[in-house]
Amino acid sequence: MQATICSQIEAAGMGSADHLLVAVSGGIDSVVLLRLLSVASNQFGFRLSVAHFDHQIRPESRAEAEFVEQLCERMRLSFFFGSGDVPAFAKEEKISLEMAARQLRRVFLLRTAKRLDARLIALAHHRDDQVETFFLRLLRGSGSAGLAAMKTLNSCWWRPLLGCSREQILDFARKENLNWVEDGSNADTSILRNRVRHEVLPQLRELNPQLDERLSVLSAQFQADEDFWQQHVAKTITALIVDHSDGLRLDRQKLLGLHAALRVRVVREALRQVRGDLQRIEAVHLQSILSLLTAHRSQSQLDIPDCWVARRYQFLWLRKKAPEKVAAYAFELPVPGRVDLPDGRFLRAVFTEKKAGESAFSVEFDAVRVKFPLLVRNWQFGDVFHPQGMPGKKKLKRLFSDEKIELEERDRVPLIVSGEEILWVAGMRRSQQAPVSADSAQILRLELLEGD
Amino acid sequence: MQATICSQIEAAGMGSADHLLVAVSGGIDSVVLLRLLSVASNQFGFRLSVAHFDHQIRPESRAEAEFVEQLCERMRLSFFFGSGDVPAFAKEEKISLEMAARQLRRVFLLRTAKRLDARLIALAHHRDDQVETFFLRLLRGSGSAGLAAMKTLNSCWWRPLLGCSREQILDFARKENLNWVEDGSNADTSILRNRVRHEVLPQLRELNPQLDERLSVLSAQFQADEDFWQQHVAKTITALIVDHSDGLRLDRQKLLGLHAALRVRVVREALRQVRGDLQRIEAVHLQSILSLLTAHRSQSQLDIPDCWVARRYQFLWLRKKAPEKVAAYAFELPVPGRVDLPDGRFLRAVFTEKKAGESAFSVEFDAVRVKFPLLVRNWQFGDVFHPQGMPGKKKLKRLFSDEKIELEERDRVPLIVSGEEILWVAGMRRSQQAPVSADSAQILRLELLEGD
Repeated sequence: MQATICSQIEAAGMGSADHLLVAVSGGIDSVVLLRLLSVASNQFGFRLSVAHFDHQIRPESRAEAEFVEQLCERMRLSFFFGSGDVPAFAKEEKISLEMAARQLRRVFLLRTAKRLDARLIALAHHRDDQVETFFLRLLRGSGSAGLAAMKTLNSCWWRPLLGCSREQILDFARKENLNWVEDGSNADTSILRNRVRHEVLPQLRELNPQLDERLSVLSAQFQADEDFWQQHVAKTITALIVDHSDGLRLDRQKLLGLHAALRVRVVREALRQVRGDLQRIEAVHLQSILSLLTAHRSQSQLDIPDCWVARRYQFLWLRKKAPEKVAAYAFELPVPGRVDLPDGRFLRAVFTEKKAGESAFSVEFDAVRVKFPLLVRNWQFGDVFHPQGMPGKKKLKRLFSDEKIELEERDRVPLIVSGEEILWVAGMRRSQQAPVSADSAQILRLELLEGD
Repeated sequence: MQATICSQIEAAGMGSADHLLVAVSGGIDSVVLLRLLSVASNQFGFRLSVAHFDHQIRPESRAEAEFVEQLCERMRLSFFFGSGDVPAFAKEEKISLEMAARQLRRVFLLRTAKRLDARLIALAHHRDDQVETFFLRLLRGSGSAGLAAMKTLNSCWWRPLLGCSREQILDFARKENLNWVEDGSNADTSILRNRVRHEVLPQLRELNPQLDERLSVLSAQFQADEDFWQQHVAKTITALIVDHSDGLRLDRQKLLGLHAALRVRVVREALRQVRGDLQRIEAVHLQSILSLLTAHRSQSQLDIPDCWVARRYQFLWLRKKAPEKVAAYAFELPVPGRVDLPDGRFLRAVFTEKKAGESAFSVEFDAVRVKFPLLVRNWQFGDVFHPQGMPGKKKLKRLFSDEKIELEERDRVPLIVSGEEILWVAGMRRSQQAPVSADSAQILRLELLEGD
């Protein structure tokens, strides 16, 4: 055991300049870890401090804290105590006691490590914990990322006993005549974990006595795979991001060109970037996003936990929330005069006698043949108009879709309406109404302009 | 169930031009599959034939074959019968009965399908089998490739019931009033599979009633991953193969430049290419090959099942077997005259009066100062010589290693020995002995030449 710890210390590169914080619950695993690290600290010269978190779940927890404090006194080690009302926190956050204890303990340990300038926090998880975690995740249907389970070194979290079995730890504790309290963490483990520990694993170990070694190897393989995927996905997604000014826009064609195994991971990474994490994201959510990409409809959207995902023609668009709907509006456009639009642009109407030529943003009508007043409004379902240069009427919805105008954009397009007729789909197309001819005495010029 | 089969048939693209061979043991799974396919064949128009393999493990097997034959008669389907002495084959090949039955049955089905020109062979594996296979492989410590388990369609093997549970199959059989024999395959399944089926899985399903669905999803994910890896590895290995004229040589630096997760798979693929398959290759073998790459020794080798793997400086070299050792030899080199070398090259010795200049393959000595006769032999441990242009003696082994001459090459290098002294390490370096000077009356010229 001591040799294992020493090789782990070497692998972690701990030296005399380092300060190590070790989390000690007072249970056998952490007491053994403390003993091993304390012996090693003399050899390697790093400083050792102890942190204990009182989760206040059971009445004995206070006594456990005192046990650890006294142990530290005897060992002449600094002792840092933290506590939190885990049951209250669990209730407040609507999470399990186990989860609440883990979160509060985690925060306490990180804070303590920061205060001490400790590079690593040692935790006493061992191989049996690892195998249990593997099976719990398997039972919950985690993907291969979940099955990678715990890492020996994961940022500042260090688990030097991850290669040791519960049996080895027990042997060591007995041989060294150590005292410990019944591990508080056993009590707050979930019923599922306990059943995996006491029912499932003993049965499986009977079928294969090498189960734990095999699963350790498998977990390590999954970890290597996950690391590969992280790098590969990070490299891939960069080439797919078209825009990240408003959520994330990915190129749909390029997404579809990826291998399915890579595509699903790129989508998951996009979710992670937009949401900040992947909590509550399940395989079914990823599947529904992937279905968007190949569905018949070129524009559709779906809500998944803490994220809104849309296909917009050749893009996949992810946002934390759905974009705000543009409120319906209708203003009179005075002529001459101007109207400010909700998005900051404005419309200007003038009478003139000289043609200046037309563009998508500036159109001209024979003023005599236009029915006033003019109305500016956004589009409504059922709108129809007669575009210049086309034989008949066209549904506005159809125009939008032919021009691949995204749903959110459509609401921003101002229509200039004269009586029953749409004169101009501003920024896009004018109608055939009242064209300027050689005979036109007065010209009505309408312009769509960016805000000042 | 019928709908499931129909959608599977569509996915497999079975049409009226196709001939489908279905493997029927007479057990409930295959009887249900046969019924479903027979109904579907009317709709889709493909031809259906039945194959049954009598494994001769139990006395009832003959009766089972008759049951299937009569079933086919009633259904007016062609019946193909095959049999083999599974116990004898198992003994001969030193494999389990289950493995032997599977291999013989597989050969029979493939042969029958080929004779009938059947594109696919339908097998009755269902989701419970899939989950069992998953757990068996997990228990055996398979990597993620193994956990991908069975595919619905894998070359000509087709498993249209893979999405259906045993329960669904039983319901269907009862509702349709089908007859079946107790499945022969239950008897020849291993003890391990039976324990997984009857002990492990019921317990796990109790902990998670959605276990089967979850594991199906996980298997599908592993399958997608495996497919990705296959493509990625195939693309990667091509750029790493330096030579494939004698086994396979891979570029060591490029291998080391790969991500660990990719590297181990490239090595596995190299093994597959050299050996033809990956049978008996375990994680430990892959690890030992990877260790070769980074070990201190620049030349070392190891034997793994059916393969020999060596590091030779900047190469990883894989062969089915270790290269043949060059037999030790020692010949007298007549002057003038020639000696044929075992590898097809030859050495020529002449006396001359005119210098022609030296190269690695042609050297000149002052004949008067050379002690005759000359001996040609390959190197021996302990050989030392005095290279021209160097202050002192040098171990031949050291010369070889400085020049990065691979172990196998070293035995092919002919030494020309005069008395106790090595005159020439042919093809590499001459010694300082008897250099030609202005006074040299007669020159001894030695040449190493390619065979005629």
